[in-house]
Amino acid sequence: MQKFNISFLPDKKKVFITEEVNLLQAAAEAGILVKGSCGGDGTCGRCKVIIKEGNYTTKQTGKLTKEQLAGGYVLACQTTAESDLVVEVPEASRLSEHQVLLEEETVGEAVSQTSVDPLFKKIKVELPEPSLTDSMDDIERLKMAVRKETGIENLRVSLNTVSNIPGILRKEKWKVTVSLADVLGYTEIAAVESGWDYQKYYGLAIDIGTTTIVVNLVDLESGQTIAQKGSYNQQAVYGDDIISRIVHATEEKNGMEDLRNAVLKSLNELISQLASENHIDINVINYAVCAGNTTMVHLFLGIDPKYIRLEPYTPAINIPEPIRAEEVGLQICKTAWVYCIPGIASYVGGDITSGAQVIGIDKTEKVTLFIDVGTNGEMVLGNQDWLMACACSAGPAFEGGGIKCGMRAMRGAIERLDVISDTLDVEYSTVGGAKPVGVCGSGLIDCIAGMHKAGIIDRTGQFSSNLTNQRIRNGDDGPEYVIVSKENSGNGQDIALSEVDIKNLIRSKGAVFAGIRTMLRKMDLPIEIIEEIIIAGGFGRHISIKDAISIGLLPDAEFEKYKYIGNSSVKGAKMVLLSKTARDEAVQLATKMTYLELSIGNDFMDEYVSALFIPHTDMTLFPSLSE
Amino acid sequence: MQKFNISFLPDKKKVFITEEVNLLQAAAEAGILVKGSCGGDGTCGRCKVIIKEGNYTTKQTGKLTKEQLAGGYVLACQTTAESDLVVEVPEASRLSEHQVLLEEETVGEAVSQTSVDPLFKKIKVELPEPSLTDSMDDIERLKMAVRKETGIENLRVSLNTVSNIPGILRKEKWKVTVSLADVLGYTEIAAVESGWDYQKYYGLAIDIGTTTIVVNLVDLESGQTIAQKGSYNQQAVYGDDIISRIVHATEEKNGMEDLRNAVLKSLNELISQLASENHIDINVINYAVCAGNTTMVHLFLGIDPKYIRLEPYTPAINIPEPIRAEEVGLQICKTAWVYCIPGIASYVGGDITSGAQVIGIDKTEKVTLFIDVGTNGEMVLGNQDWLMACACSAGPAFEGGGIKCGMRAMRGAIERLDVISDTLDVEYSTVGGAKPVGVCGSGLIDCIAGMHKAGIIDRTGQFSSNLTNQRIRNGDDGPEYVIVSKENSGNGQDIALSEVDIKNLIRSKGAVFAGIRTMLRKMDLPIEIIEEIIIAGGFGRHISIKDAISIGLLPDAEFEKYKYIGNSSVKGAKMVLLSKTARDEAVQLATKMTYLELSIGNDFMDEYVSALFIPHTDMTLFPSLSE
Ligand code: FES
Ligand SMILES: [Mg+2]
Ligand SMILES: [Mg+2]
Repeated sequence: MQKFNISFLPDKKKVFITEEVNLLQAAAEAGILVKGSCGGDGTCGRCKVIIKEGNYTTKQTGKLTKEQLAGGYVLACQTTAESDLVVEVPEASRLSEHQVLLEEETVGEAVSQTSVDPLFKKIKVELPEPSLTDSMDDIERLKMAVRKETGIENLRVSLNTVSNIPGILRKEKWKVTVSLADVLGYTEIAAVESGWDYQKYYGLAIDIGTTTIVVNLVDLESGQTIAQKGSYNQQAVYGDDIISRIVHATEEKNGMEDLRNAVLKSLNELISQLASENHIDINVINYAVCAGNTTMVHLFLGIDPKYIRLEPYTPAINIPEPIRAEEVGLQICKTAWVYCIPGIASYVGGDITSGAQVIGIDKTEKVTLFIDVGTNGEMVLGNQDWLMACACSAGPAFEGGGIKCGMRAMRGAIERLDVISDTLDVEYSTVGGAKPVGVCGSGLIDCIAGMHKAGIIDRTGQFSSNLTNQRIRNGDDGPEYVIVSKENSGNGQDIALSEVDIKNLIRSKGAVFAGIRTMLRKMDLPIEIIEEIIIAGGFGRHISIKDAISIGLLPDAEFEKYKYIGNSSVKGAKMVLLSKTARDEAVQLATKMTYLELSIGNDFMDEYVSALFIPHTDMTLFPSLSE
Repeated sequence: MQKFNISFLPDKKKVFITEEVNLLQAAAEAGILVKGSCGGDGTCGRCKVIIKEGNYTTKQTGKLTKEQLAGGYVLACQTTAESDLVVEVPEASRLSEHQVLLEEETVGEAVSQTSVDPLFKKIKVELPEPSLTDSMDDIERLKMAVRKETGIENLRVSLNTVSNIPGILRKEKWKVTVSLADVLGYTEIAAVESGWDYQKYYGLAIDIGTTTIVVNLVDLESGQTIAQKGSYNQQAVYGDDIISRIVHATEEKNGMEDLRNAVLKSLNELISQLASENHIDINVINYAVCAGNTTMVHLFLGIDPKYIRLEPYTPAINIPEPIRAEEVGLQICKTAWVYCIPGIASYVGGDITSGAQVIGIDKTEKVTLFIDVGTNGEMVLGNQDWLMACACSAGPAFEGGGIKCGMRAMRGAIERLDVISDTLDVEYSTVGGAKPVGVCGSGLIDCIAGMHKAGIIDRTGQFSSNLTNQRIRNGDDGPEYVIVSKENSGNGQDIALSEVDIKNLIRSKGAVFAGIRTMLRKMDLPIEIIEEIIIAGGFGRHISIKDAISIGLLPDAEFEKYKYIGNSSVKGAKMVLLSKTARDEAVQLATKMTYLELSIGNDFMDEYVSALFIPHTDMTLFPSLSE
């Protein structure tokens, strides 16, 4: 087999690969993270690179414009070398462009001291000195002192820790600091420190999202978040969505390892930055709580996610035991425990349990709807008496996936938008106030609402045949509406929304609404019963509730019933990290939630078809829009 | 520093050592186990070797006869090389001479099937197949099935095991065999095997004695002991008694490692022999239960025993958690758990708990005395209402230690003996019927009893001045009684018991009896209250109860009250291995036993002084002897 040198520009990184390795894999090997949204299928067109020198074989999948072809662009995933190559990776094709919206307000947010009962803590104890009349063994003596101080009955000490204890106890004249780690079912005496001037100790609250990863560094004594950092999940090289990740894990050689290493690399980079910027040693990070969807947790723990994808969609595990950091590969204190918040089903994971826990859905009388719309659209409905969860495969449209001008809520994304009814002109604002380069979820909702209101599209999303305007034209995919022309855009290209894109978005919003309705139907409840609607995730941050209702994405409820909660996944992880009670409640919550599988029966399909209209076939569901 | 080659004969093993390494250490390095009873102090005189060639420095400690000095004998521990050496190690100086008396009757002894509820077992389960309406995760599904089958609530699965489970469940169409390991507080799903034709599974019951180690290989399904093997504890190279082991562990560089490796080597050799002789793979040995004294358990687990030796004599740990075989270094299935039966105090260990458990002392109405006389003399007194334990530092006299003609009950040891009153001649029998080479514990008791009865010694152990007989003479240590003359012995040397030896034995028997009396005094009970006396350990095997009473070693009770139980330490380990209930009870037993520290107050000392007579100063304690 032949081998070739591939140099990547402008990084000047080189790899030596065999002829059958494609350029997407070669780039990953060189440490350059190229977007591989479709998992290398050639269908997303995001992995564009430019061949500067050398011979190659490439497959055309119709994802490149004539200009791009002329400029030497190829899809990295479809291209292999025939000689040594020099390849340029444009900024737009790199994962590093992704930014994570962090929530400033949570940093420095203290928890009232009294309520902090973290999963790891240090306590000062003084032991009665042994004597001939009291010759109890050192470990039992220590346990007695800890029990007296904390009331904790079920204490364990691992053998490695035992060895040092007798010496320290005597050297310190029986006054020591004891580290206690809660391990779901028992408490571990994790370490014994000299004297009472102990080292500060920290924990991590982690959200492992399919797209982004957020890590909070938490002072476990004060309960304060010291710092927060977010980044893309480097698994994105192997595909944007969960399914392509599972396919890679189960069908590629070393696929599991690829994905596990990618998420660990993402996490360990963030942890190392957090530690060095805050001048703390990674060894004083003594506990980590992770929330993530079921596939993310499987991959993180190295458990084969194969059956998540196959009917009847059963996860290997919903409630994993805590595991040592060293064993899982997280670079914090080796003996620290890493706990993953329990999930509910293959497509409703620990991130949703975490969110449900934060909003206290199991403690309120009010019937509450909790929605986290990412690539999937997971929902929980219920209150203290009953709880139901479902996942509605909304698709990635609201995250910009599958929409030509779509993008995530990053710099240059149009996040709010108004269509002026008489001129059909557009007023908009972008993330960071930059020149527009695309439209993110909230902007897309506004756009459809505006286009429908202005009569550009009808209730089915079809372009009106009797409107003529310079912004309406026939594009590659049929009729389209130009939001920003290339003269005014930030990337020299028109930003336009086609009928195909609109139908896509209608399918997404229809799936979400149908999911809500199916849960209600199961309980035989009308939509008006919902007293509170809580929206989580980056998607909900900037959306106009009014426009979301007007396109039929969200229920027609009073605005006061709506609340935005941000990254509830990481918030719940922090809550659990800081409270044993919250941890226990999270397990109960996950256990008692009824999972509704939408693919059973026709209920969901019926609701879905009815929801493929703006706002819906049944207008009585949207009374405020009929006025 | 100079280095020399040392060749050992007849083994023809060579080592290359630096000039400061003594020949006892050099031999250990060469894998030749020379007796180091005193731990290399030069006081026991057991490490005799013969220098055949080369120059050396040696220290005379008066332990060698003129003949031996002339023959090139030196004490290995007191000798270092000045040139390359050729050294012969006589058979008598080798540890390998030690033999362990195994108890044939326990091999093949089945336990009634219904009572076997071992700490490791395999169960067959069939899981309901998942469906869209029942998409419970695989692990929970498995746990449910196990719970249904066994009623066990608290189940855990380690992450390594989780990964394989989904695949096996589906391949086997949801019919699998599950391995369950009990881990004190929870049950671990240790493995899932394909189908219902599972592999056989085994456990080990282990007695880790200071001198000898016994391993039982147990079929965990039938509860039957497949085979038993015993051997010396290779730690003996570093000293015969517990104190010299602790000194080595705490004061020598790598001392802890030396001792840990020695006991592991002893154990792993026995295990490997048991496995190969019985044609089983070490990986199907899935659980081990160990009983040993507190110091042995500390050294086995790698825990510093330093404070066991220092007032107020506190062990680091009495109740160790179960630990993985791989972690402790036992060569059986890596993930197998190793459990050490809990101890009570520094000098009353898990071997005594184990014995107390076997005799069911906590379940009987009868006031019972349990005695295990080894180098130490540990005792338990009590019944279902109260339990007390003590250790009386009897010294190793009854194991042959410190007695010139003393030896353990091995081939050629005089085990029973009669002094003919008129001739003062001796009738005896030896272990294995071999020519006599020494006297073991039971023979020593008989001998003193006989000498006293024949008037050779008085009640204090002093030789009578008005008796003349060819067997009574003045030896190196003053007056002595020749039991066997060199013409009739198996080693060409006289076998004689001196006044010094007799005083030594009286001190030992006095300590045991004083221990019993001190416990009774603590409870304000007379000696007649004891309804049952159970003797454990190799020592008790051949003793004449009558003679033991007549010298004042054991209480003057009817013979029917006495019972010999053999190696109760390994029996208890087996009992615990085969029953969770027994395991739980052993923990309770150890916890509820009151430890009586004999060095507090004057009670023990008073009793001890009174017991330095044959049989005792207070003859009312021995009514049967006054008749
Ligand atoms: S087209 Fe190459 S990764 Fe999607
Ligand atoms: Mg999320
Ligand atoms: Mg013993």
